[in-house]
Amino acid sequence: MAEANGKADHLIGVDLGGTKILAGVFTTSLKCVGRSKMSTKADRGSEAVVERIARCVQDAVDECDLSLKQIRGIGIGSPGAVDSDSGKVLFAGNLGWKDVSLKKELEKELDLPVFLHNDCNVCTLGVHEVELEGKPKNMIGVFLGTGIGGGLIIDGKLYSGFNRTAGEVGHMVLEANGPKCTCGGRGCWEAFSSRTALFRQIQDAVHDGQKTVLTEMLGEDLKDLRSGDLRKAIKQGDKFVEHIVEEAAKYSGIAIANLINIINPEVIVIGGGLMDALESEMLSVVVKTAREHAFPGTDKGIKIVASQLGDDAGITGGAVLARRETK
Amino acid sequence: MAEANGKADHLIGVDLGGTKILAGVFTTSLKCVGRSKMSTKADRGSEAVVERIARCVQDAVDECDLSLKQIRGIGIGSPGAVDSDSGKVLFAGNLGWKDVSLKKELEKELDLPVFLHNDCNVCTLGVHEVELEGKPKNMIGVFLGTGIGGGLIIDGKLYSGFNRTAGEVGHMVLEANGPKCTCGGRGCWEAFSSRTALFRQIQDAVHDGQKTVLTEMLGEDLKDLRSGDLRKAIKQGDKFVEHIVEEAAKYSGIAIANLINIINPEVIVIGGGLMDALESEMLSVVVKTAREHAFPGTDKGIKIVASQLGDDAGITGGAVLARRETK
Repeated sequence: MAEANGKADHLIGVDLGGTKILAGVFTTSLKCVGRSKMSTKADRGSEAVVERIARCVQDAVDECDLSLKQIRGIGIGSPGAVDSDSGKVLFAGNLGWKDVSLKKELEKELDLPVFLHNDCNVCTLGVHEVELEGKPKNMIGVFLGTGIGGGLIIDGKLYSGFNRTAGEVGHMVLEANGPKCTCGGRGCWEAFSSRTALFRQIQDAVHDGQKTVLTEMLGEDLKDLRSGDLRKAIKQGDKFVEHIVEEAAKYSGIAIANLINIINPEVIVIGGGLMDALESEMLSVVVKTAREHAFPGTDKGIKIVASQLGDDAGITGGAVLARRETK
Repeated sequence: MAEANGKADHLIGVDLGGTKILAGVFTTSLKCVGRSKMSTKADRGSEAVVERIARCVQDAVDECDLSLKQIRGIGIGSPGAVDSDSGKVLFAGNLGWKDVSLKKELEKELDLPVFLHNDCNVCTLGVHEVELEGKPKNMIGVFLGTGIGGGLIIDGKLYSGFNRTAGEVGHMVLEANGPKCTCGGRGCWEAFSSRTALFRQIQDAVHDGQKTVLTEMLGEDLKDLRSGDLRKAIKQGDKFVEHIVEEAAKYSGIAIANLINIINPEVIVIGGGLMDALESEMLSVVVKTAREHAFPGTDKGIKIVASQLGDDAGITGGAVLARRETK
């Protein structure tokens, strides 16, 4: 295992995704001083991806005129089920990975200590440390994007459960007979409130003759539809899009009420690209619905807020992970 | 605060319910050597109830020819939201209590150290220690009875969250547009799978002309219907009752899948009077449905079992709590 250089005063956070890799260089006080981005090319296999992560890290370090010698450690968030103790990605559907020794392989490439966790856990760690100053003992981070994932901080530490898959909140069933989900089930939160679910509902309705300014903006096939387009459509008074977004936000509120009933954390932070793009349209509906559905008394004083870290949650959390582990 | 007598070699567990109080005397190796039962008479107010708890404890001690001097401590589970640090019942709907200093008052009555937790937490503690030998680091206890409640053991310790209400699993929404629940919401687990929900469905159907052997057993109004009657009806080939019980078990399976997705505990133990009476009719359906609905891979190796402690879960857990706190 690579040893941390105690004198090195920088950290690296890596956000490994199904389509892109982000790397950020941070000071030990968690200021981002350089970054780099690269496509993942998961179809080339895990060895090639590890090599691309290493290159992305080197690019980020070079970008801010540093060398690897000045890096204390690397924290990385990977999709899927991750065993942080052994540093393995157990399985990750969108990378096509099974039992990949990411920590070991990356340490070999870069000769730096690498620390690995699930991506939503890493994002939660970033939000907890940077946005909430590490204060809440128990918190939940939920991330609304292509899918929906989450991370749990219990007693100040990341909690990952028996199979390291705790926080798989997107597949919480909210309507036992609801719409089909990518997981094979029905009525999961993700099937109501993810970007994928929203886009599918809009495209289905347009296919059935629904009018919307989105087709004026993007053409009938709605190719290249993005979360930001929904915001623009709502701003232009599109009641159809507004209704779709509101319904999705209501289901998110119900899911968050369930989390309050079950885990009763001090804070729930909502992040991810979809919340980022539609915070002013969604957050108040989410909060109102959550408070209405939480068992009376259980939500008292519990904060439900939107993350402001946006796309940086992953790399920031990676740096936090590296800092914790090399202290 | 009352001091524990280190030489005393017995513990007391108390299960405080809306209708009855149970007290059990245990050896330090958690063998039950005496017990007592008394009606709660919550309508007489909290002072009278505390006095009745004290009397119930004294009766149990007397029953096994011991004296209070031989008792090391008392662990008590109370319904509602409980602050175990201050020893207060914050609110308990079925007792009509708000901010009752149960620990302090009972210590005054009995001059013994008293330790307090939420009833489902205490039952979970009992199951964890006695049925699972304290082994699982993370587990969830769920209790199907008049209502549905739960308790969480995280990292070997009871977890109660920000407002001490964690484990309020019965109000997890499973059908956003489902049947009305006593909490004011819709489609909560409790509205599908509690004894109250089952009885309501049966009584409504009978009112609408449904035939069942239950009316032959108990008369048209189904007064005095008990969980055990459902088992008898199913054994006599009553397909209607069988279907109702199976549907309730399916919803319990979905709820448990949600808990696996969110918390990923090592073990989920299902207790309570309803599971007790209908284990052979319900458990296999619950387990099958839970595994079908858990996100693929997340339930691997996770045990879903029925508790065998029955009505003793509360007093046993109380004794475990007292033993932990006086060690």
